Amino acid sequence: MLADKEKHLQALQAIFGPEHVLHEPMDCFGYSYDASPEELDVAETPDFVCKAHTAQQVSALMKYANAHKIPVISRGRGSGRTGGTIPVQGGIVLSLDEMNKFVELDEKNLTLRVQPGVLTKDIHDFCAEHGLYYPPQPSSYKYSTIGGNIAENAGGIRAVKYGVTSRYVMGLEVVLANGDIIHTGGKLIKNVTGYNMTQLFVGSEGTLGVITEATLQLIGQPKYVKSAMATFRSVEDACTAVSHCLHSGVTPTAAELMDKRSCEATAKFNDFPIAPEVGAMLIFDLDGNSPEICMSDMKILEETCKKDGCLDFTLAADDAEREHLWTLRNKLSTALKSLAPDRIGEDITVPRASLPEVCNRIMAIADRYGFDVSIFGHAGDGNLHPSLLCDMSQPGVPEKVHDCVGEIFQAAVDCGGKLSGEHGIGISKQPYIDIALEKEEIDTSLLIKKALDPNNILNPGKIFNR
Amino acid sequence: MLADKEKHLQALQAIFGPEHVLHEPMDCFGYSYDASPEELDVAETPDFVCKAHTAQQVSALMKYANAHKIPVISRGRGSGRTGGTIPVQGGIVLSLDEMNKFVELDEKNLTLRVQPGVLTKDIHDFCAEHGLYYPPQPSSYKYSTIGGNIAENAGGIRAVKYGVTSRYVMGLEVVLANGDIIHTGGKLIKNVTGYNMTQLFVGSEGTLGVITEATLQLIGQPKYVKSAMATFRSVEDACTAVSHCLHSGVTPTAAELMDKRSCEATAKFNDFPIAPEVGAMLIFDLDGNSPEICMSDMKILEETCKKDGCLDFTLAADDAEREHLWTLRNKLSTALKSLAPDRIGEDITVPRASLPEVCNRIMAIADRYGFDVSIFGHAGDGNLHPSLLCDMSQPGVPEKVHDCVGEIFQAAVDCGGKLSGEHGIGISKQPYIDIALEKEEIDTSLLIKKALDPNNILNPGKIFNR
Repeated sequence: MLADKEKHLQALQAIFGPEHVLHEPMDCFGYSYDASPEELDVAETPDFVCKAHTAQQVSALMKYANAHKIPVISRGRGSGRTGGTIPVQGGIVLSLDEMNKFVELDEKNLTLRVQPGVLTKDIHDFCAEHGLYYPPQPSSYKYSTIGGNIAENAGGIRAVKYGVTSRYVMGLEVVLANGDIIHTGGKLIKNVTGYNMTQLFVGSEGTLGVITEATLQLIGQPKYVKSAMATFRSVEDACTAVSHCLHSGVTPTAAELMDKRSCEATAKFNDFPIAPEVGAMLIFDLDGNSPEICMSDMKILEETCKKDGCLDFTLAADDAEREHLWTLRNKLSTALKSLAPDRIGEDITVPRASLPEVCNRIMAIADRYGFDVSIFGHAGDGNLHPSLLCDMSQPGVPEKVHDCVGEIFQAAVDCGGKLSGEHGIGISKQPYIDIALEKEEIDTSLLIKKALDPNNILNPGKIFNR
Repeated sequence: MLADKEKHLQALQAIFGPEHVLHEPMDCFGYSYDASPEELDVAETPDFVCKAHTAQQVSALMKYANAHKIPVISRGRGSGRTGGTIPVQGGIVLSLDEMNKFVELDEKNLTLRVQPGVLTKDIHDFCAEHGLYYPPQPSSYKYSTIGGNIAENAGGIRAVKYGVTSRYVMGLEVVLANGDIIHTGGKLIKNVTGYNMTQLFVGSEGTLGVITEATLQLIGQPKYVKSAMATFRSVEDACTAVSHCLHSGVTPTAAELMDKRSCEATAKFNDFPIAPEVGAMLIFDLDGNSPEICMSDMKILEETCKKDGCLDFTLAADDAEREHLWTLRNKLSTALKSLAPDRIGEDITVPRASLPEVCNRIMAIADRYGFDVSIFGHAGDGNLHPSLLCDMSQPGVPEKVHDCVGEIFQAAVDCGGKLSGEHGIGISKQPYIDIALEKEEIDTSLLIKKALDPNNILNPGKIFNR
């Protein structure tokens, strides 16, 4: 709890207007947690919640907070999965939720300037109205904000072909810890004019600056999309097929993997028959400029999969079948939740070719701890979400989960991977950061953090554990 | 000139072996310039040239140089166009030319680890032998090194579809100013584990660290390539057509623009007839997985161009015609050089839609200075190379060129652009950096520079002018 609360309240009210500053603990409580699967007891109710509407307000706030060394935690909709927006040291939660304007669509340059509080789905819808396309689609897209997507460098299923959020961030307006407002990049496809400050802020989880506007690159809307489901005897076969598909020159938009456990859960939950010999399933999307191109590309995927032991390759005949296919994937989390009181879903990233090995290791680890585990994720880009199915209310389970997750992270790192592909480190993965990054890289990162935020007021206590 | 030269010589010889340390001024002289079009009189002959063969040598060098505050300038083949490798304060040129090993091809993960001295063309050839593809192809690719390409974030003609060098750099081994060796990223397509250190080093022109290894992302080799030439009455028509092509959902690999002057030079030099009403030309490449897809995509480009006033759209019928078409573009620099004693080729980047406006402004500026100007470049990504044709030996011309170039940069910035799309800032654009970057962004960049290189020994005197 901050000292001088009354003085700070007056200062904050002067910046944001009294109606945009919350200070009663009951009002602030809702800003003390996020969508993390585990309960993170480090959470503290923030002293204040300020709702920003302009970059100038954010700048004034940062000047004030910097002078008084008060933590500032940027927040969109709090849909993060690693506690990134949890105010672990109290202070001010800066809600950017209401900075949600579409600033400028530049159709000639295929760029869109947005404020950070715009929902990702609203960007998709807005683009579609103009025949344009913003590819990143994290699974939270209906309720997560673009600011949060940028701060966590969100991924999603379309990254195989289109890459993750970072690829579409051309420029940023950022308010620094000292209150300076900087404008990085621009509507420029190529730019080597000074350091790449834009990408330094992307994925930095609110620890280096507050994003108050983003210039996004759009592309033309894909005209036709086709989907297919391929079943395999094993995760290994499925992953080999994905690798060969990518070599074939056909890059699917999505290549989603479900392991045997995930297939079983899906079959049960959706009353969808899956043959007992199926040990893994892939769901593909691909897009193109004509139905013929989509079909010929799909044919290449089918032939490639069949060479790698595909049991069955089913093409969705129409939009209804497409939707049904994707329902299997989209309802997977719910299907898994129906199997156990808790689902602890993690997010690891490994070199694509290491997917079978890491899956085997994860299953062995979970087995050793006596947990049921389901593995699914983005096979096209090596990003997996192993999910431990457990009952966290049972004595000893949270501790076991913690240790088990630690071993899973270690397995990912041993396979050449890292702790997070799209959820970030936040606080939930912070205890494990040392196994993923060398001391020298952390030292260097902290030099940058200290240079930009010498008083450590921007989202303190996140990512690094010193 | 350094004091204690003899002492330093012994120390450097102990690190690299006597045969890998040059110290006689005549031997070092060749490392005092690069491929910049203007003569840069700031050049100083380096005190030493050290030829590195291992990251450990580079680390030992940095520790020594840091302790003695001696400048270290990394250099590949010196093919830079902005004086980036010129030792403006003397010191040690660190030649990475002989660190030219292919470390590991990982076909399953589509990754290639290389040392910095490998030529970009050798990467292309090596990939082709394995049915793989490294897309970036800066025009210097036959004689520039991958280390230099990364340090300058090199672009080239294929960036329209495939992006620039940065998109293919997945991880780096970097030796820092203090001698620490860090390993950023990895064979990971998605990764949000700490800051994006990789992209901080890409394009930082050797001012933040020495790149001693890179992990590159490869893709499957495109199976078929088609090329076409489209002529237009004006640059405006041509640029509008490119914009509409990109909206069409067909992304060409390359969309190279030549203005009227460039067309005339090409016509004359290659004895290639170009109709007098032609005011601009586009050369397209596109690739795909079947000849049919290429042809149907090419048809879309043709129809789009014709809607935008294309005078003539000629498809290259076979490889010989393709090659001939690209000869027109590839020999353009030589064609222009034949028109005047000197060609001062610049490199600006603007939002794609601003290409016509910036072309008009550049022509007006050059006209005012009495210079003949030719504008060509990468219309698909807003990156232009305006070339002043002049005689630098005439009195007053270098000064006029300097001023004229300054106005061209200002025009680019006024159109929402920056000073460089692919050549970097180095020293030749340094006087203009303040017009392209806000003071606050430069301040922030310098905070990072100071944090990582407190003694300012890494390529001092580059990019920023304070």
